[in-house]
Amino acid sequence: MLGEKEIEDSSYYGVHTQRAMENFNISGKPMHCELIRALAIVKKAAAMANGEAGLLEERLERAICAACNDVLSGRLDNQFVVDCMQGGAGTSANMNMNEVLANRAIELLGGSKGDYSVVHPLDHVNMSQSTNDVFPTAVRIAAIRLLSPVSGLFAELQTALQQKEEEFATVLKVGRTQLQDAVPVTLGQEFGAWAQAVARDRWRLYKAEERLRQINLGGTAVGTGLNAERKYIFSAAEKLRALTGIGLARAEYMMDITQNNDVFVEVSGLLKAAAVNLSKIASDLRLLSSGPRAGIGEIRLPEAQAGSSIMPGKVNPVIPEAVNQIAFQIMGNDLAITLAAQSGQLELNAFLPVIARNLFEMLDLLRNGIRIFIDKCIKGIEADTARCSLLLEGSLSLATALSGYIGYEKATLVAKRCAVENRGVRELIMEERLIEEEKLDLILSAYGMTKPGIPGKKG
Amino acid sequence: MLGEKEIEDSSYYGVHTQRAMENFNISGKPMHCELIRALAIVKKAAAMANGEAGLLEERLERAICAACNDVLSGRLDNQFVVDCMQGGAGTSANMNMNEVLANRAIELLGGSKGDYSVVHPLDHVNMSQSTNDVFPTAVRIAAIRLLSPVSGLFAELQTALQQKEEEFATVLKVGRTQLQDAVPVTLGQEFGAWAQAVARDRWRLYKAEERLRQINLGGTAVGTGLNAERKYIFSAAEKLRALTGIGLARAEYMMDITQNNDVFVEVSGLLKAAAVNLSKIASDLRLLSSGPRAGIGEIRLPEAQAGSSIMPGKVNPVIPEAVNQIAFQIMGNDLAITLAAQSGQLELNAFLPVIARNLFEMLDLLRNGIRIFIDKCIKGIEADTARCSLLLEGSLSLATALSGYIGYEKATLVAKRCAVENRGVRELIMEERLIEEEKLDLILSAYGMTKPGIPGKKG
Amino acid sequence: MLGEKEIEDSSYYGVHTQRAMENFNISGKPMHCELIRALAIVKKAAAMANGEAGLLEERLERAICAACNDVLSGRLDNQFVVDCMQGGAGTSANMNMNEVLANRAIELLGGSKGDYSVVHPLDHVNMSQSTNDVFPTAVRIAAIRLLSPVSGLFAELQTALQQKEEEFATVLKVGRTQLQDAVPVTLGQEFGAWAQAVARDRWRLYKAEERLRQINLGGTAVGTGLNAERKYIFSAAEKLRALTGIGLARAEYMMDITQNNDVFVEVSGLLKAAAVNLSKIASDLRLLSSGPRAGIGEIRLPEAQAGSSIMPGKVNPVIPEAVNQIAFQIMGNDLAITLAAQSGQLELNAFLPVIARNLFEMLDLLRNGIRIFIDKCIKGIEADTARCSLLLEGSLSLATALSGYIGYEKATLVAKRCAVENRGVRELIMEERLIEEEKLDLILSAYGMTKPGIPGKKG
Amino acid sequence: MLGEKEIEDSSYYGVHTQRAMENFNISGKPMHCELIRALAIVKKAAAMANGEAGLLEERLERAICAACNDVLSGRLDNQFVVDCMQGGAGTSANMNMNEVLANRAIELLGGSKGDYSVVHPLDHVNMSQSTNDVFPTAVRIAAIRLLSPVSGLFAELQTALQQKEEEFATVLKVGRTQLQDAVPVTLGQEFGAWAQAVARDRWRLYKAEERLRQINLGGTAVGTGLNAERKYIFSAAEKLRALTGIGLARAEYMMDITQNNDVFVEVSGLLKAAAVNLSKIASDLRLLSSGPRAGIGEIRLPEAQAGSSIMPGKVNPVIPEAVNQIAFQIMGNDLAITLAAQSGQLELNAFLPVIARNLFEMLDLLRNGIRIFIDKCIKGIEADTARCSLLLEGSLSLATALSGYIGYEKATLVAKRCAVENRGVRELIMEERLIEEEKLDLILSAYGMTKPGIPGKKG
Repeated sequence: MLGEKEIEDSSYYGVHTQRAMENFNISGKPMHCELIRALAIVKKAAAMANGEAGLLEERLERAICAACNDVLSGRLDNQFVVDCMQGGAGTSANMNMNEVLANRAIELLGGSKGDYSVVHPLDHVNMSQSTNDVFPTAVRIAAIRLLSPVSGLFAELQTALQQKEEEFATVLKVGRTQLQDAVPVTLGQEFGAWAQAVARDRWRLYKAEERLRQINLGGTAVGTGLNAERKYIFSAAEKLRALTGIGLARAEYMMDITQNNDVFVEVSGLLKAAAVNLSKIASDLRLLSSGPRAGIGEIRLPEAQAGSSIMPGKVNPVIPEAVNQIAFQIMGNDLAITLAAQSGQLELNAFLPVIARNLFEMLDLLRNGIRIFIDKCIKGIEADTARCSLLLEGSLSLATALSGYIGYEKATLVAKRCAVENRGVRELIMEERLIEEEKLDLILSAYGMTKPGIPGKKG
Repeated sequence: MLGEKEIEDSSYYGVHTQRAMENFNISGKPMHCELIRALAIVKKAAAMANGEAGLLEERLERAICAACNDVLSGRLDNQFVVDCMQGGAGTSANMNMNEVLANRAIELLGGSKGDYSVVHPLDHVNMSQSTNDVFPTAVRIAAIRLLSPVSGLFAELQTALQQKEEEFATVLKVGRTQLQDAVPVTLGQEFGAWAQAVARDRWRLYKAEERLRQINLGGTAVGTGLNAERKYIFSAAEKLRALTGIGLARAEYMMDITQNNDVFVEVSGLLKAAAVNLSKIASDLRLLSSGPRAGIGEIRLPEAQAGSSIMPGKVNPVIPEAVNQIAFQIMGNDLAITLAAQSGQLELNAFLPVIARNLFEMLDLLRNGIRIFIDKCIKGIEADTARCSLLLEGSLSLATALSGYIGYEKATLVAKRCAVENRGVRELIMEERLIEEEKLDLILSAYGMTKPGIPGKKG
Repeated sequence: MLGEKEIEDSSYYGVHTQRAMENFNISGKPMHCELIRALAIVKKAAAMANGEAGLLEERLERAICAACNDVLSGRLDNQFVVDCMQGGAGTSANMNMNEVLANRAIELLGGSKGDYSVVHPLDHVNMSQSTNDVFPTAVRIAAIRLLSPVSGLFAELQTALQQKEEEFATVLKVGRTQLQDAVPVTLGQEFGAWAQAVARDRWRLYKAEERLRQINLGGTAVGTGLNAERKYIFSAAEKLRALTGIGLARAEYMMDITQNNDVFVEVSGLLKAAAVNLSKIASDLRLLSSGPRAGIGEIRLPEAQAGSSIMPGKVNPVIPEAVNQIAFQIMGNDLAITLAAQSGQLELNAFLPVIARNLFEMLDLLRNGIRIFIDKCIKGIEADTARCSLLLEGSLSLATALSGYIGYEKATLVAKRCAVENRGVRELIMEERLIEEEKLDLILSAYGMTKPGIPGKKG
Repeated sequence: MLGEKEIEDSSYYGVHTQRAMENFNISGKPMHCELIRALAIVKKAAAMANGEAGLLEERLERAICAACNDVLSGRLDNQFVVDCMQGGAGTSANMNMNEVLANRAIELLGGSKGDYSVVHPLDHVNMSQSTNDVFPTAVRIAAIRLLSPVSGLFAELQTALQQKEEEFATVLKVGRTQLQDAVPVTLGQEFGAWAQAVARDRWRLYKAEERLRQINLGGTAVGTGLNAERKYIFSAAEKLRALTGIGLARAEYMMDITQNNDVFVEVSGLLKAAAVNLSKIASDLRLLSSGPRAGIGEIRLPEAQAGSSIMPGKVNPVIPEAVNQIAFQIMGNDLAITLAAQSGQLELNAFLPVIARNLFEMLDLLRNGIRIFIDKCIKGIEADTARCSLLLEGSLSLATALSGYIGYEKATLVAKRCAVENRGVRELIMEERLIEEEKLDLILSAYGMTKPGIPGKKG
């Protein structure tokens, strides 16, 4: 249509792909391999549904399905050459897949590549389809597949944190609010609080998966289903469910899904919330392990590698630092997705490729990042119990437990005097004989303070 | 504690508030009135729970509750003078409330303001509490209250769009993908697709409300519940549920809620997804109503006001433009919330005030924005049916319906020739006798193309 | 034009304003008062230029100028009632100003308000103008005026930091990279590094002001200057320069400035970079002052207010926390501005109102935030010299100075052994007799390490 | 130090690199090749400066320099295997470089790889250096090198737009504000306005380069210069200037540059402003070329590829769509950079790797994106002059030219009546004999309206 193009003989892709390669020399990165797989599965489901509906000859159906299997095996990965950052709402990705499948199917049927009279990339491979339903459907399938291991890893992370919660259940230490010494907690409780946040993330991933399940395959160009027979439409979704093992649901109103990408913003927002938790945990770990001598130093992270090319023996919290950076990247990607999603116009959002790219990267980063976070950091964390005790003993916040007995104002005076005179709370109360010793022991029990109730009173 | 301060006689707030006013002359804006109300409700619930637990004398409980009622009535609004942008995790907001309630309760008990021996802001009003559980709890309550009308408005918006869906069900028009003429749709379908997106937003708001229900009241300083007796803890949540009518749930692990603000990121992300939809709808309306003569002009928006101080008679889509701006603001606020949430450290996130401010603004903007969007725009939209028909008739995308008969490549040649020769698809097919006339009428039926199936074939 | 409206008798605004009030009940906040002033100045310059060009009768010119002066005095502030979040690219703001000025001018000329045959809001007050040149010009003027005190405050901040640099020039302490103990620095050097960053911010503000100076007054509706005579165009810019005292420059290509808002993104980006520095300094101050006993505690911030409603005597770093929140807000606003700026279409960007709102807020927050940062935090910071020394003495990073003598690997072994055996670097080297004592004193001089060169060698 | 590791014989990297590979299996992408080159240049400059200062034996200096040359030739690219997303502030990148250079130098000196007694990665290759000065310096050099072609491309883009400005100088058309028909412009003026915006971008890139020139090489671990002799410090910067040909300047206060990354935020903000312009231009082109029949259709973009897999003959604006997506990505990257930059702590910002990654990607995307934007879009744009005329003739905004003669209100009535009666402005004025014909011709001259002045009056 736009003139002839020379293509290498060995290639399975054709002129549309060739043009797209030339047009979109942008990021230098191909489509995500999960997206290639997902596109092939969609094509297979479509071929099967077309066959069943009597629209596609059985031998063509078989050949196309066999070609899809070849793609799914990874053998043809190098044939998917269009840039992941492409204009055109994914048309080039779809065309690349159509051409590779057609040429492979032709080959399987004994024809010679390029002879589209045997199998046509559009009339046969793309039959009853449009980029506008195939590509969004494939993006969702790929995202769900990438989500799955991430969900598993968040579960592992929660478990790893809870094991530390148990391990450190009796390590008493000073709590800190606004980085100032606050009332006592156990180190275990700190890990427990992080584990709870991660538990919410697990729920989020579950929701994210659920939100991605709605597909518009069968909607074709604008979601109305033009050129896709009803029989095909119902059957295609069914085949896709069977082939993927994912509980995909055909959207009732396919025009909506074709043009509105808010679901990706929602999913991205959920991942961002998870990233916020990871970043908070990573930053806290860096704070608590600061030192070794001039910081807080209540915990020790496992040594992952030498920390400095100039300072001998320095070991840095490189794994949490990587996790923080992953979180920053995820927040940036969330913005790119938001911008693309809110720029859709009328019957289509042309910017799905950049959404897909950023979403897949978020999921890849989470998968890899949580893996190392668990294995190379969380699991190996040790408590410096002596340091925890030492810092706790001097804490003026123990005065909080006195409020119930001597009132906030008097307790404030005690704390202030301790600060000025560089003394301990217990010592001063004893000296002033404000509370008798036995009682005071109960009140100032750090362990008691880590639980609900006024220390020394019967709850 | 930090020296004396002169306070005006008529004021109900005290020295802590006075200091905070001086420290935080930042945004010039006070706390959101819903936050003031929510803080007062929390204080009332706490006083009742303290009373029930036998920690607070009945007459004090009564006086404090009466003072809370005065705040709830709005009569003391001008006593809440601390800036909404405050350091200190909300301590100043809590102190402001403690002081106003104490002084009002003193007054009610016949004492003179400032005589804290009668009712003490901290020992009595703040009994069993900390800013770190009171403030986050109040922020959640205020957010839920602001959410409620927004949910209602999204429902109204969906209804308004669906009424137009019905009204325009038979207005055939050209669809557009990537701003290029595509296959036919009805104008009703376009409104229907937007309505579906809004339906997802309704679900989102429902989820947002659900996510905000978990509170940490009773957790006090770091979430361990120090200085709050178990009896009080259970009772306070119960009272709060009763007073608010909201299904609030005490977090099982209060340390988590005290330090982790990911829930606000999640909720903000859900609102952002809703804003993305609003922005997309507003932009589409501006596109479709572009003109009146040199644009698309398929619909007419109601004239809200004169559009130009220089171009006579010009009327602009000012309401959708306002909606777009609201969406941009919401996306900005989402980022501020994310930054604040990911900056929490150890047992507390000190940045909750800026989170609250941005969240409340998002909700206010949505409430006001959707109201005018429905009333001053959506409801009054009219179709220019003649224009819709005119543009559809010339569309080359009608050739899509031919693919099933003459194949994609031949259909492409037809479309290209039409373009070059400036002719219509039907005319050319007739001239070439590619398909017989009767059949062609069926195939090229625009109405048929707005439904699934190959036009002219029996689905 | 769109029907009649009842307006209160006492009002100076008219029907266009009234409509806009009803249409844009959005944020509940009026235009920034600096924007009102700036609009009035633009109107005054225009009236003078129209007068000079012989387009406007002298008595009308005088009356309009007198009305402008009334607005500039602040006396009519309550007449500017349109919401700052308005659709329509600022038309309502311009109309509000046109109407108030016309009615005030009518009054001054002895007419009765509403009798536009005396002075017409559009034909006279808005003569030779359009919202599309008036509003962007006024936004720039208002922004420059708000920038000016901010620039002064950054200068003050730099000075305040440099005074501390000097004050703490001899306070030796441990440096920290990645929160791990690193080689020695002086506390003064730390303040010096922050001061340098602030110096760059000063340059940024200077550039921001420069970038805002280009105006499109005279471009009218689309920047072509239709309905504005050349004589007027040249003269209007000149008058505006004289009235504002700002070096405003008429854009050579006014169509560009009318439609492209990238300059606001650039300016906002510069402010964001400044916010990043403020946030970093605030976070560092919170780290260094953490404690008082279980943290780093190398510095003490002035006590701004009581820190906790439950923990007696606790004092929190509330001012730096406020500064962090200001920074988060600024980053959020930067995003809102970016979104609005990139959404301009063809000859105009309709979203300037939301850009203006966010930009003005950024500047207000910076002005107020830096004020309190200097006065209530930086100036009162004290060093805990003893604590600095104590932490430095134990530092293993002193081993860095040994590398030049015994090599990185041996130095690593020394550091590691010190860590394991809980000993000091000096002690171990002495015991191992790796370096003779006299030399070692020179090498391990912390003061020496805060300067370039291999300690103990002659540079 | 952290145990032994098996390394493949053929590798030039060593144990530190090996560990980093295992630790940071995160993004799956290596360092940008420009960063590898830049690191090698820094090492070479350092070796030369160390040699000159008499710190490094001449034969070692020569061997290290030769090894650097090998890296610069690209031959050893596959030896740089650490992930670009790495924790540790770039230590692993620096270690990877140190090890490869040491082993290559050893080989060149006839030793066997791994025998660090010949050339030591730290004592020799890293002599007088720290990751904390080497890595930030290299990032700046790489960024400047990537900037350079981008600057050239923005210049080309401006030229391309200005050629179209000239080409379309006489194509009269309707202007559009807020997507509503406004007063006339020429198509050339529209390209001219875009060219002006791009001219500002060129200035931005120039500033960006300037801002990046300040380096901290010689500052070593925390910017104090510990272990780097003054002679070396001065000489290293000089060598680096000579080797790179870039006007690099040693920061006077190296501690600042070592810990503060605001410069990257500033540069990123400048690139973001440029992206905003690109996005606006791309969106405008898509609007103006919408159709071909049911849109605006005033211009035709060159056909880059077939647009649809289902709609025959459809051609989409795929290049501008790619440009929009590039802009969205750049805005996302800007956020990731901002987050990382504001998270620096005390003497270092550990998150420079993620900053570098995002900055380099922005520059790569701009380089590739502008290339295709010029070649495959801008250059081939054609005007549909007939369509421009047709749309202009009917425009009601011509009434604007009447205001100066009959007043805004009467002109409004004319425009409104034209709208209702579906007539033209000229026709109605003639009918009403409001202005005599000859005069009217002058007033309603569209060409006249594209210039300053009241049409028909002598300016």
